[in-house]
Amino acid sequence: MPQVSNKGIQMPESPIRKLVPYAEIAKKKGNKVYHLNIGQPDIKTPEVALEAIKNANIEILEYSHSAGFESYRTKLAAYYTKHGLPVETHDIIITTGGSEALLFALGTTLDAGDEVIIPEPFYANYNGFSVASGVKVVPVISTIDEGFALPPIADFEKLITPKTKAILICNPGNPTGYLYTQDEINQLAELVKKHDLFLIADEVYREFTYDGDKHYSVLNVAGIEQNAIMIDSVSKRYSMCGARIGCIVSKNKQVMATAMKFAQARLSPPTYEQIASEAALDTPQSYFDEVITEYKERRDTLITELNKIEGVKVSAPKGAFYCIAKLPVDNADNFAQWLLESFSSNGETVMVAPAAGFYSTPGIGLDEIRIAYVLKKEDLIRSVAILKEALQQYNK
Amino acid sequence: MPQVSNKGIQMPESPIRKLVPYAEIAKKKGNKVYHLNIGQPDIKTPEVALEAIKNANIEILEYSHSAGFESYRTKLAAYYTKHGLPVETHDIIITTGGSEALLFALGTTLDAGDEVIIPEPFYANYNGFSVASGVKVVPVISTIDEGFALPPIADFEKLITPKTKAILICNPGNPTGYLYTQDEINQLAELVKKHDLFLIADEVYREFTYDGDKHYSVLNVAGIEQNAIMIDSVSKRYSMCGARIGCIVSKNKQVMATAMKFAQARLSPPTYEQIASEAALDTPQSYFDEVITEYKERRDTLITELNKIEGVKVSAPKGAFYCIAKLPVDNADNFAQWLLESFSSNGETVMVAPAAGFYSTPGIGLDEIRIAYVLKKEDLIRSVAILKEALQQYNK
Repeated sequence: MPQVSNKGIQMPESPIRKLVPYAEIAKKKGNKVYHLNIGQPDIKTPEVALEAIKNANIEILEYSHSAGFESYRTKLAAYYTKHGLPVETHDIIITTGGSEALLFALGTTLDAGDEVIIPEPFYANYNGFSVASGVKVVPVISTIDEGFALPPIADFEKLITPKTKAILICNPGNPTGYLYTQDEINQLAELVKKHDLFLIADEVYREFTYDGDKHYSVLNVAGIEQNAIMIDSVSKRYSMCGARIGCIVSKNKQVMATAMKFAQARLSPPTYEQIASEAALDTPQSYFDEVITEYKERRDTLITELNKIEGVKVSAPKGAFYCIAKLPVDNADNFAQWLLESFSSNGETVMVAPAAGFYSTPGIGLDEIRIAYVLKKEDLIRSVAILKEALQQYNK
Repeated sequence: MPQVSNKGIQMPESPIRKLVPYAEIAKKKGNKVYHLNIGQPDIKTPEVALEAIKNANIEILEYSHSAGFESYRTKLAAYYTKHGLPVETHDIIITTGGSEALLFALGTTLDAGDEVIIPEPFYANYNGFSVASGVKVVPVISTIDEGFALPPIADFEKLITPKTKAILICNPGNPTGYLYTQDEINQLAELVKKHDLFLIADEVYREFTYDGDKHYSVLNVAGIEQNAIMIDSVSKRYSMCGARIGCIVSKNKQVMATAMKFAQARLSPPTYEQIASEAALDTPQSYFDEVITEYKERRDTLITELNKIEGVKVSAPKGAFYCIAKLPVDNADNFAQWLLESFSSNGETVMVAPAAGFYSTPGIGLDEIRIAYVLKKEDLIRSVAILKEALQQYNK
């Protein structure tokens, strides 16, 4: 019997999905499960996007351009320009989700065995994309004690080898909710210029910043036009996770020409979802104002409630809709499983994402969880109350 | 300035797309271009599929399951079973096009440096997917003189090394239109069993067979359930190329569990296009009967007309909607460019795909082109007349 590849064996399982069977056990027992574990917003998709699909007049569902509709790219370039990023149509390739944009970015900049430095904890699927691409993730540790701020540049310098080709950041961060300051982005810019590295920035949560903090993009930094590659997606911005539309953006023409070869091999991104994504650019500002206000209130509610639990430490997220919480348990994996398998409070329990899966260094983050605040406030309050009761019972 | 990866440099450009700038020149001159170069059918997409999208009642465009809708997979399994392939829901993962299914299949079965044997000429993007996956294509030559029949098994045997992990076929073939016989598939089955290899079959043209010949799938062969991996797509079957919905199918549970890890990393296939694809399974048989009748007539017209040109040799395609034609020219690349750049007949010309790009062995197929018969009969007749006139002028 033929055996699967080592690459296939090394492909990590999603740290979120491995708890799914236990969530099913909880549900079979009749328990209600509050999902704090996933980044699927409960926010409605803008009507203008959904209507565009209903009104699309398609008779033959043809391939589109491998770079995506030109009309969409032009409108998207105008959107970025309006938001302070000087981007032109030909600087953009539309991809099948931010996922594919990341795969194109890694394939374009790294060969098998090359190294990409990523501040950890990081979005767990970076591991999967790296294994699939045959490249090595070199983590640089950020800590809850520092609020997951950028690690000292000296820590990056120590990790740079001849095989290092890129630094990958997520800003604002999943799973940390950390928003890099202008100064931090500038420090990274200096670093990649000094060592001739690419700076790949996953900025899919760009719009989700609170407290008046402004997002500072790698495309805002003068002097690193040839180093900067930006990854974006409609998934979170318009609550269109199922669209699978994203993009890769760079001013580096060699990068774009190379990414285009990857794009041509897979022919085109999905047509209907491009129609929706193009139309979504007409979403009124009021939609975002409401969404951001809602998330800010959720964040504040969540953090306030979590801080009431003795022994819990939580980072104050400045963006996205996640936070990392350190729990008074030895192993958050076991605790998360126990929550689903063995615990309930009045027929209710919570599902959380153990944070160890977001670290690449073994043994780190074992007592941490990621919480996504994608539920409405009363559900968040109830969820944290359940967590508090569960921790008391678990630690008896 | 940081440099792109060697992988990126090695990524091939599409043999079709590199002529696109010359097609633009032809159009700028005011010439009409008949596109014999692409596999984009002019057949209408089934209404039942397009209607399903219009009627979809989505408020939040959420992630779907990483393996695709369960309802779709179940209905698809029933479709395969009805067509003689005993497939169950859990044997299927829905992918973003056949393209992604191929990437998952290569990633699941081959490591960097491993070898996949492919009869050439083959679908050009296999090269791109192989470079992206870091694996090596080992071509085994099939010839127009043999009608692109399966090369002798001894030719495969000679190429098998410890690094060989899989054989990849396209059946019916793009670009050859060849349909493997039951006997040929059985020979391949014996071979992969003997050497413990995977047999990956791209069967996206399964329904397009003529002259009463029946398609014989790798899933039809008893005894290679652990070796066989089938790639499929809705693109051609329902003229839904822009949907980007395909699937990977195997009875090998280790293969499916591994492919699932690749699927989870990229989250999910597009939602709307899955709705359309699921609905497309209700397309009435009359749709296919009409389509097959139309393609058969186009094929017969094309072959008849091509055979009238002196010095042209053409293989008789038994399936799909392509054929390879050998032309009385030294270099079909130059000829195809000349057709667009310098030739016109009453303000009209044709665009063809030079076949060299479908071969992996350098120097083979230089005088061959691929023709897709995706135009209506009168256009095919006119296209071949243009080709005839062009050849006379070119060879003067």
